[in-house]
Amino acid sequence: MAAKIKKVSKKVGQPPGTLMHIGNGGTEKAEISLIDYNKDTIVEKKVDSIEECREFKDKSTVTWINIVGLGDLAVIRALGNKFGIHPLVLEDIVNTGQRPKLEDFENYLFIVLKMIFYKDKEGEIETEQVSLIVGPDFVISLQERKGDVFNPLRERIRNGKGSIRKMGSDYLTYTLIDTIIDNYFIVLEKVGEKLEDMEEELVSDPSTETLQAIHRLKREMIYLRKSVWPLREVITRLERGDSLLIKKSSHIYFRDIYDHTIQVMDAIETSREMLTGMLDIYLSSVSNRMNDVMKVLTIIATIFIPLTFIAGIYGMNFEYMPELGWRGAYFVVLFVMLVVGAGMIAYFKNKKWL
Amino acid sequence: MAAKIKKVSKKVGQPPGTLMHIGNGGTEKAEISLIDYNKDTIVEKKVDSIEECREFKDKSTVTWINIVGLGDLAVIRALGNKFGIHPLVLEDIVNTGQRPKLEDFENYLFIVLKMIFYKDKEGEIETEQVSLIVGPDFVISLQERKGDVFNPLRERIRNGKGSIRKMGSDYLTYTLIDTIIDNYFIVLEKVGEKLEDMEEELVSDPSTETLQAIHRLKREMIYLRKSVWPLREVITRLERGDSLLIKKSSHIYFRDIYDHTIQVMDAIETSREMLTGMLDIYLSSVSNRMNDVMKVLTIIATIFIPLTFIAGIYGMNFEYMPELGWRGAYFVVLFVMLVVGAGMIAYFKNKKWL
Amino acid sequence: MAAKIKKVSKKVGQPPGTLMHIGNGGTEKAEISLIDYNKDTIVEKKVDSIEECREFKDKSTVTWINIVGLGDLAVIRALGNKFGIHPLVLEDIVNTGQRPKLEDFENYLFIVLKMIFYKDKEGEIETEQVSLIVGPDFVISLQERKGDVFNPLRERIRNGKGSIRKMGSDYLTYTLIDTIIDNYFIVLEKVGEKLEDMEEELVSDPSTETLQAIHRLKREMIYLRKSVWPLREVITRLERGDSLLIKKSSHIYFRDIYDHTIQVMDAIETSREMLTGMLDIYLSSVSNRMNDVMKVLTIIATIFIPLTFIAGIYGMNFEYMPELGWRGAYFVVLFVMLVVGAGMIAYFKNKKWL
Amino acid sequence: MAAKIKKVSKKVGQPPGTLMHIGNGGTEKAEISLIDYNKDTIVEKKVDSIEECREFKDKSTVTWINIVGLGDLAVIRALGNKFGIHPLVLEDIVNTGQRPKLEDFENYLFIVLKMIFYKDKEGEIETEQVSLIVGPDFVISLQERKGDVFNPLRERIRNGKGSIRKMGSDYLTYTLIDTIIDNYFIVLEKVGEKLEDMEEELVSDPSTETLQAIHRLKREMIYLRKSVWPLREVITRLERGDSLLIKKSSHIYFRDIYDHTIQVMDAIETSREMLTGMLDIYLSSVSNRMNDVMKVLTIIATIFIPLTFIAGIYGMNFEYMPELGWRGAYFVVLFVMLVVGAGMIAYFKNKKWL
Amino acid sequence: MAAKIKKVSKKVGQPPGTLMHIGNGGTEKAEISLIDYNKDTIVEKKVDSIEECREFKDKSTVTWINIVGLGDLAVIRALGNKFGIHPLVLEDIVNTGQRPKLEDFENYLFIVLKMIFYKDKEGEIETEQVSLIVGPDFVISLQERKGDVFNPLRERIRNGKGSIRKMGSDYLTYTLIDTIIDNYFIVLEKVGEKLEDMEEELVSDPSTETLQAIHRLKREMIYLRKSVWPLREVITRLERGDSLLIKKSSHIYFRDIYDHTIQVMDAIETSREMLTGMLDIYLSSVSNRMNDVMKVLTIIATIFIPLTFIAGIYGMNFEYMPELGWRGAYFVVLFVMLVVGAGMIAYFKNKKWL
Repeated sequence: MAAKIKKVSKKVGQPPGTLMHIGNGGTEKAEISLIDYNKDTIVEKKVDSIEECREFKDKSTVTWINIVGLGDLAVIRALGNKFGIHPLVLEDIVNTGQRPKLEDFENYLFIVLKMIFYKDKEGEIETEQVSLIVGPDFVISLQERKGDVFNPLRERIRNGKGSIRKMGSDYLTYTLIDTIIDNYFIVLEKVGEKLEDMEEELVSDPSTETLQAIHRLKREMIYLRKSVWPLREVITRLERGDSLLIKKSSHIYFRDIYDHTIQVMDAIETSREMLTGMLDIYLSSVSNRMNDVMKVLTIIATIFIPLTFIAGIYGMNFEYMPELGWRGAYFVVLFVMLVVGAGMIAYFKNKKWL
Repeated sequence: MAAKIKKVSKKVGQPPGTLMHIGNGGTEKAEISLIDYNKDTIVEKKVDSIEECREFKDKSTVTWINIVGLGDLAVIRALGNKFGIHPLVLEDIVNTGQRPKLEDFENYLFIVLKMIFYKDKEGEIETEQVSLIVGPDFVISLQERKGDVFNPLRERIRNGKGSIRKMGSDYLTYTLIDTIIDNYFIVLEKVGEKLEDMEEELVSDPSTETLQAIHRLKREMIYLRKSVWPLREVITRLERGDSLLIKKSSHIYFRDIYDHTIQVMDAIETSREMLTGMLDIYLSSVSNRMNDVMKVLTIIATIFIPLTFIAGIYGMNFEYMPELGWRGAYFVVLFVMLVVGAGMIAYFKNKKWL
Repeated sequence: MAAKIKKVSKKVGQPPGTLMHIGNGGTEKAEISLIDYNKDTIVEKKVDSIEECREFKDKSTVTWINIVGLGDLAVIRALGNKFGIHPLVLEDIVNTGQRPKLEDFENYLFIVLKMIFYKDKEGEIETEQVSLIVGPDFVISLQERKGDVFNPLRERIRNGKGSIRKMGSDYLTYTLIDTIIDNYFIVLEKVGEKLEDMEEELVSDPSTETLQAIHRLKREMIYLRKSVWPLREVITRLERGDSLLIKKSSHIYFRDIYDHTIQVMDAIETSREMLTGMLDIYLSSVSNRMNDVMKVLTIIATIFIPLTFIAGIYGMNFEYMPELGWRGAYFVVLFVMLVVGAGMIAYFKNKKWL
Repeated sequence: MAAKIKKVSKKVGQPPGTLMHIGNGGTEKAEISLIDYNKDTIVEKKVDSIEECREFKDKSTVTWINIVGLGDLAVIRALGNKFGIHPLVLEDIVNTGQRPKLEDFENYLFIVLKMIFYKDKEGEIETEQVSLIVGPDFVISLQERKGDVFNPLRERIRNGKGSIRKMGSDYLTYTLIDTIIDNYFIVLEKVGEKLEDMEEELVSDPSTETLQAIHRLKREMIYLRKSVWPLREVITRLERGDSLLIKKSSHIYFRDIYDHTIQVMDAIETSREMLTGMLDIYLSSVSNRMNDVMKVLTIIATIFIPLTFIAGIYGMNFEYMPELGWRGAYFVVLFVMLVVGAGMIAYFKNKKWL
Repeated sequence: MAAKIKKVSKKVGQPPGTLMHIGNGGTEKAEISLIDYNKDTIVEKKVDSIEECREFKDKSTVTWINIVGLGDLAVIRALGNKFGIHPLVLEDIVNTGQRPKLEDFENYLFIVLKMIFYKDKEGEIETEQVSLIVGPDFVISLQERKGDVFNPLRERIRNGKGSIRKMGSDYLTYTLIDTIIDNYFIVLEKVGEKLEDMEEELVSDPSTETLQAIHRLKREMIYLRKSVWPLREVITRLERGDSLLIKKSSHIYFRDIYDHTIQVMDAIETSREMLTGMLDIYLSSVSNRMNDVMKVLTIIATIFIPLTFIAGIYGMNFEYMPELGWRGAYFVVLFVMLVVGAGMIAYFKNKKWL
């Protein structure tokens, strides 16, 4: 967690609007790809600079510009100049410590989202900030790292599958957000599997590592919840039609992803409650093991301590101990010991400790 | 839980409106049954295809179409075409991971509900998604699996019992929802019985299995609560008369089922609180058993350890130990041991450990 | 709790408005008593049937009809016919699983309340549903069982004590609700006494029964809270003057009982918090006893185990053990044992274990 | 707590407006003192009856009547008659179980407050109900018991210190409430000191008494919170200017005491959280002591049990045990025992148990 | 905490508006520094008295007066006179027990903020109250102690870096608040590092000191949360444009720091949840150590107690014990003991206790 805060504190003391990349995007050159389409035509190309995108911006076709690599501040600055984006928005794009949010600047919307990935080995959830700038007929998406989550969407645009080619930039925005939220389900599915593994481990062989794993996952769930919770508000505002850039006919689609967000929240809550339950079972499991240890000690000790006492009596060196001289006394004592021992065992069986 | 999320993640990457059945409905042919009635007449028949239902749709009589089997996508698609249902609604019908909700499309209402069943053996609660499409004079209900919950209702329509034959599609909707909510009471009653069994088990013979059963049931309650909570909102909106399809005279009936929903919520909350209390009792019960074990150990050890020490003294081989030669010393020592032992027992009795 | 849900599930599958008594009222004939009064006159009589009450209904005097016994469905049905009460209201009257609520039917108010009794022996709180139907100049109260809670009120009407004879049906409603809420204070007082008893028991002699009693009482408090919480809303609506049947001059009286409701809620909350604190003290008390047991074991064992070891050494049978032959060696060893034992005791005293 | 509820239940069954003192005020004669002032003049006197106060009421000067002793019902009744106070208000004045509240009767305000005192010896917080009746140019304050909290205020009026003499009855009301709230800080300061003492005790010498003291203080904090919470609302309404009796220029003063109320709430919350933390430390402290006990037992037992076993071997009486006859065998065995014992101690040192 | 309340209680009984410094500011002379600037010019100087600042107040340039040292009441009083500040505001400035708040006096805004510092050695968070008085073209900032947090800001004004020189007093207010909030990130980063250290310590070597450190930090987090929570409201009101002194063009900047406040809240919540998790791990860690101790005891005792018993048998002095005379019996018994001991060890290995 310290790491997450550290990212932000680096910028302390800078005037607002200062661009400084805080995140994992590196500083190599940004990759810019562009898809320009309408019902009939489609242009797709890799571009070198934001300048090349300008011509598409003013056309009535829908233009989707995808920028990967937030460390290339020159590109971000060019974006600000050519598309007239507010400096504070640019700052938020490169500073990846933002919460999901929607800001409405009359001629464009600025949307911040969190993409999540589950790193199986470390049992950790990694997030990546995805920013969207939505104009009347363009959408600019900005990612920290390369990834293939948007590939099926590109495929759909190319093939004209579904109604995407017939719709505007608001529908493209919807599909982008939908893709990101769908990703949450994949991560939650993996978390669910991990939970089931841990649950078995808990009963069979609980260790301090299990406890730490439970706490680590619980913390990840808390962190995830913080990423999804503000998303609800973002989508509610898109669904309610606060912005003129979202056409009324698209509201139903945003209502659909609103439902998905709620389902994600539900799954996160369920995971958290399962983890809390697992903590209880862990503690109970540990205390049961302790009880088992104690029982063995008690059984051994309570059987043999009285027997040792009896042996001790006849080990005394008194000159006058009549039993010592009796024939068979030794065997009588052995028999008595047997009876006492068997009695103890019967007592424990009765108490269900054996 | 992983299973529940998995269902949804299968669809990731598909364009919206793609029909893909996610649930337990299987893929065999859907069963469609139709009841068409008004105050005077009643027609009841099994139909093969949605097309056959069309003629009834436009008549002023109330038409109830019940479809069982969501895996038969052809029927769902036909329903969409003939009745003009939005593709996203069709998608929600076949994807059974929805939360209860109400969507108002001017000319019809789309209602998603959850039917619940208690599987006694596994101690699990199973849910089935029931969707209702409510038009001005028709109601279409869609179920995942065959079941007999709606049979008493069919009987009432046939017999004209109650006022159902005189009322419109809104009243039919009410009775359908009422039937589903009544089912919750049956499940909660069974859960209540299970709780009472577990409570007795807790005190008499608590085991790790009991603990796991408590947690399993607690989780089921959490899941149930999530099914019922949004139901409240659905019914509030029906009661408040947001939709023109619900006549003002029917509001009182929806207020009635609103009251039932609150009672269900109350019963779920009570169950949860009982389960929390049972966890406390379980832990206390386990720790009491531990105490019992410790007490036995302590009593045995503290009685015999001093006695063994005395025996040990007179087992020493010193040449000059005057007591060894005394007559009766042996019996004196035995008597001393008896007194010490009895003193210990008296002490424990006094401390109430015996 | 199962019992409480069972009551409701009996009715599953019945059409709405079906009268079926669910509760403890039995099926014997209902007792109907009537008081009709204004400033000057008073008529009081037992009546046999609702029909006899009709003549009083239309007079401008205030008429209070008290019906005891909800199992006599004929009376309930007659009430519905003669006074024009909605079938769903009649259903709610006889089905005693309702939560406190207020329903406003333009020409009458329907109020559901819960009367509570504390059964000292079982340590349980019993509830009884009391329904009020408030018209412009009549009040009908319906109870499950006979009781004398309303007797002081009858006395006040007879004697014209207080201002009750000068006021209308709204004031009578106020006094009826006030009487019921005053009863809560009596129950809470008894619960408070029970709590104080349990608190003493906790410290002096905690047992699993105490724990179960705490949990039982906690559950009763939760249940009680659920009865009182909706009451707040009922009274707020009466106080705010939502209904024309409540005169403006009576609002101040309803504000008064609103204050009482808040005080009841406060007392319930305080009880719950005390019970939570008692759980902590119970657990700590049990663990303290365990510690006491362990300390005794430890003290006895750590004193005698080293001494027994010393005795063991001189019990060995080596041929060449010079000490054995020394005169006084025995007494030296005894003295050493005394010193070791005393040293241990001093150590424990120092550690404050003795 | 039972005591607190009992007070209220005494009145059950009485008609509303019945005066019956419930509290600690006793029944001796009330003490009435009067201060009448404006910028220029001041009259201060003890009066015998409410009648004497009447002449001051109608003068335009500010009149402050302070009444101590709520058991003197004659005075309360006279107050009702002469100043036209509603019977329910009189009832609330003498029944000291009220929560802080503000009631607005067009020509006067009725304010209920709670004065608190910390009884150091018992570690308990005692409350006293203070009622204020605020008219256009008079304030009547009613207290249960004599006290000197208002003395500095009287002094300020006499000396004309601050702006009090230039202001109206609303400012006097403000200073009265301010004085009461200031008293909360004094109590919370004492509680804070108590908490610090308890914190030290917890670590040095935790006992069941400490646990009970924590719980008692926690309960007091809960009770205190209930007294302060509604106060917030009272002051918010005064600050917002709901009543015409509070001049606009005084709003800023009420905002000031609103801030103080929030600070009191904060301090109470902080105390509660500290107490919760102390519970954790108590439990951990007790369990640490238990661990210490167990460690001593384990160390002693694990060192001496093997040694005693060795001694036991050579205490056996077999005829043919070659070692017994060896010269120096005894010393070898003693040396072996020393090595085993030292090895055990080294092991424990290594495990950090010593 | 007691200390924090004590500060406030000192003032009890004083009339409102009485200036009395409650805090750590000392009583030495206040240091006043002034910066007056617009786009083109800048004047910066240390001044001796508030009087010297007056001339700048009425100029249209932005004037920032920074006052350090709240114990110098003469300066505060002069500020009140020359700038027309309400006495209650002056009181709040010098009484440093305020919560963050915003008060809007038509011609100026009064803002209270909390600056925080992390004292690494003590593991404590220290707060300092910073008050801002914002007029149409001046900002007065008041601090308790000298510090260098505002130096980078002064540098920016001198260099004309960023847009600060072109903007008005509202933008200066924004940068001041931004600087203070940025400081929170620095503190939270340090807390994060501390948390990571403690987490390692927890697993490797948990002690009661660790527990106390966790609780201390948890309390600091609670206290911090109370400082930040009301800040949210302050900034929301500035962002929403409630005051005419904040220009519309500045709203976006306040929205920016609103986002930061939310991030601070998130980080505090995350820290709290981590601390709660650490408490669980601490308790589990302590209980694991206890288990280890018990296991060692059990293993040693259960191996040697039966062996000692066997030795005890052959230490008995019966005259007729045939085994004693057998040759090799001694070695057989030793072998039997070896087998029993090895069997026990195998049993423990099997149970995974070794």
